[in-house]
Amino acid sequence: MVQTIFSDTIVALSTPPGAGALAVIRLSGPDAVAITAGIFSKKKLAEQPGHTLHYGTLRDPNSEAILDEVVVALYRAPRSFTREDVVEISCHGSDYVVRQVLAVLLRQGARLAEAGEFTKRAFLHGAMDLAQAEAVADLIAADSALSHRVALNQLRGGFSQELRELRARLVQFASLLELELDFGEEDVEFADRSGLARLLDEVRGVVADLLRSFELGNVIKNGITTVIAGRPNAGKSTLLNALLREERAIVSAIPGTTRDFIEDEVSLDGIRFRFVDTAGLRDNPADEVEAIGVQRTRQRVQQAALLLYLFDLAEMSPAEVQAEVAELTAGLQLPVLAVGNKRDRASASQLAAFGQPLALSGTLQLPVLLSAARKEGLEELQAALLGQVRGAGLEANASATIVTNVRHARALEAAAGYLAAVQQGLDLGLGTELLAADLRHALAALGEITGEISTDDLLTSIFTQFCIGK
Amino acid sequence: MVQTIFSDTIVALSTPPGAGALAVIRLSGPDAVAITAGIFSKKKLAEQPGHTLHYGTLRDPNSEAILDEVVVALYRAPRSFTREDVVEISCHGSDYVVRQVLAVLLRQGARLAEAGEFTKRAFLHGAMDLAQAEAVADLIAADSALSHRVALNQLRGGFSQELRELRARLVQFASLLELELDFGEEDVEFADRSGLARLLDEVRGVVADLLRSFELGNVIKNGITTVIAGRPNAGKSTLLNALLREERAIVSAIPGTTRDFIEDEVSLDGIRFRFVDTAGLRDNPADEVEAIGVQRTRQRVQQAALLLYLFDLAEMSPAEVQAEVAELTAGLQLPVLAVGNKRDRASASQLAAFGQPLALSGTLQLPVLLSAARKEGLEELQAALLGQVRGAGLEANASATIVTNVRHARALEAAAGYLAAVQQGLDLGLGTELLAADLRHALAALGEITGEISTDDLLTSIFTQFCIGK
Repeated sequence: MVQTIFSDTIVALSTPPGAGALAVIRLSGPDAVAITAGIFSKKKLAEQPGHTLHYGTLRDPNSEAILDEVVVALYRAPRSFTREDVVEISCHGSDYVVRQVLAVLLRQGARLAEAGEFTKRAFLHGAMDLAQAEAVADLIAADSALSHRVALNQLRGGFSQELRELRARLVQFASLLELELDFGEEDVEFADRSGLARLLDEVRGVVADLLRSFELGNVIKNGITTVIAGRPNAGKSTLLNALLREERAIVSAIPGTTRDFIEDEVSLDGIRFRFVDTAGLRDNPADEVEAIGVQRTRQRVQQAALLLYLFDLAEMSPAEVQAEVAELTAGLQLPVLAVGNKRDRASASQLAAFGQPLALSGTLQLPVLLSAARKEGLEELQAALLGQVRGAGLEANASATIVTNVRHARALEAAAGYLAAVQQGLDLGLGTELLAADLRHALAALGEITGEISTDDLLTSIFTQFCIGK
Repeated sequence: MVQTIFSDTIVALSTPPGAGALAVIRLSGPDAVAITAGIFSKKKLAEQPGHTLHYGTLRDPNSEAILDEVVVALYRAPRSFTREDVVEISCHGSDYVVRQVLAVLLRQGARLAEAGEFTKRAFLHGAMDLAQAEAVADLIAADSALSHRVALNQLRGGFSQELRELRARLVQFASLLELELDFGEEDVEFADRSGLARLLDEVRGVVADLLRSFELGNVIKNGITTVIAGRPNAGKSTLLNALLREERAIVSAIPGTTRDFIEDEVSLDGIRFRFVDTAGLRDNPADEVEAIGVQRTRQRVQQAALLLYLFDLAEMSPAEVQAEVAELTAGLQLPVLAVGNKRDRASASQLAAFGQPLALSGTLQLPVLLSAARKEGLEELQAALLGQVRGAGLEANASATIVTNVRHARALEAAAGYLAAVQQGLDLGLGTELLAADLRHALAALGEITGEISTDDLLTSIFTQFCIGK
């Protein structure tokens, strides 16, 4: 790892914006302490040791106006997050104060940090590898026990360790290959041929497991986008409110009230469901705004991972439900959950009609019957939602590493491809040089994950996805 | 000031909620360090000196699961914000992580802090007076140069100092009164009668100035609620978007699109204007949702500090504008700003018709003519908005103390009342004992501002207005 030295000092707000008791502004770089000392009442800040806290006032050196009363936390290189000198200024949690302090720090010579630049510096200074750096963003976004555990494991180097072991086995494989090459010309019966095949099998198995874990990882990280669709007044907004346990959407007794999409998320058993409410699906929408809404509903259904089709038990027949779902999902491979609402108002014969399985999206399924307004049957709906995930084989194994990052999945796919080529080459008896080339490509693909092999473009594309201040 | 000792340790998130690089969880109380040490990897935390920083991991002692990698900031009593032992834990800025860490800290013996409880402890331990404590909340809410300056001055004790000087003069007045009492019985011509009158005049003048400053203080702190009303399709949402320089409202060419109120704020010259968009004022609204909207518009107009009446230049006559404004403001003392929109589409005769002053809310006023869609004429509108503030005599004097707190204003009003009684008593030649009683009441009223005189109820009502974590 090359030791990279930056000559400039970066600064950013590191806590979420908005009103709060505290806001933390972070500086990192060779002038972090000097720049802060220049506007801080405790002039001897530059002489203080690292890992210390200092109370004082910040003053605009131009106007002499006091900016705030603050506490300055001092970290000395290399004992800091970035391995550079770092200053964290705790000021009052007001956006106005933060803007003023940032403006003065910029005038004093700091530069506004780019997205993810603190973490990027930590990576470039060898404080963490690339997979760990990416886990910082994942950890911050974590909103369930599962996503938290996966991100923290990755941050703490669990995934990196697994990759290191994988690479070590590939290197072992390469040395066995070399051995065969050495003896190959002598045309000697090679004793460890089976060991070679077993090792390659093993490595390919680990890569395949990691790749398989990505399907669950993706669900853990991004949640399951669940579009709630149905006719106007089927109770979509009411159901969404019941699921979210709060009144988000305007609920009115007039069909066609919901015109904008309302997204919110519920975490069930560590799996996040992102619910998207839609305008009612009427064939002849009453006005222009509603027509736009219906059009956008159909677009949303196409992007969903799951369609929750909601209908009024008293107003639709099983055949109508099947027909509307078929129309909505035409040409799509989309799992569907049919949910009959207003169970409390339906007649016995209507309830009986929906006691039979419906043919939906190529499978037979008993609809969930509930009353969103009375909040009855919601637990069955939650169980059915989780059943959709489990049905797809997406269950978490507590101890296994789970790949959640699409970049890592791409790299693993590439590695799997090169390893398949090695296997094929062995089977066909190709020359060792060719096999060795594929092996190097596989190692490089795995190295991209932890950043042992990285390019400026790659780093830029990773870190610009971070927030500023990380 | 009584030294108050709390036996419990409080904890809260002190940074704004939401995703960010960092979140800070604060503990204060006798067990702050021990509770943190119990879940922190660096077990000797309890032996560390104050004003130091410590990197390590937090672990749930029940499940042994790692919660996060954190930095712990240590403050030792009395060198802390609350004068108690204080620990600030910087963890990753994820709501999930924060919830987990808080849950474990509560299980370890901390108690969730009530709103404002950290600041309340700081006040009760004599770290600041009540006016300064209240300024913490004001500073955090500050969103303009003026409100920031006023709050910071108050936080740093400027207002408290002014009150101390006021009280000192009242005490001086009381001693002069005593002097007169001593000599009064001897019926001696009293030399300093004019000095006494002058001093009382002076003190009453300062109190009156402070009270006058409250009108501006209120505007600085709370902004000016400006309701934008007008007929459907006059361009209210478009104007709001232009003022806010972003697309907040759904803008559509169909009348009656805005059904919910959309509030946002713009700071002009340090004065905050809170704009409230409203549903269009149609006499026969098309449906039930819209009818509710119109009803709420009329309610909002009644609560506004300023009415911005927007009309389509091409669709209304001056007489119609005057009639609709008169109807909206009937029975209200409400300043009105008439704004003619779609200037670009109006004919020369229409523009000329509105080149004459309109009679609005009892004054003659030239309407502002602009094009919201083309963002033309917005500067004139901003000048007219500021003119409304200046017209009300609300201009900031850079050096004067400005009262922004309604509680302080009430106390000053009470003091003014008692001082008027003293004046009257002097004029009527009432007995010195009666004057002295009124004087004591005046001193008590002023003492309530800084908390020299306070009750539990008063403290509760002040600090529960704070956010949790302050």
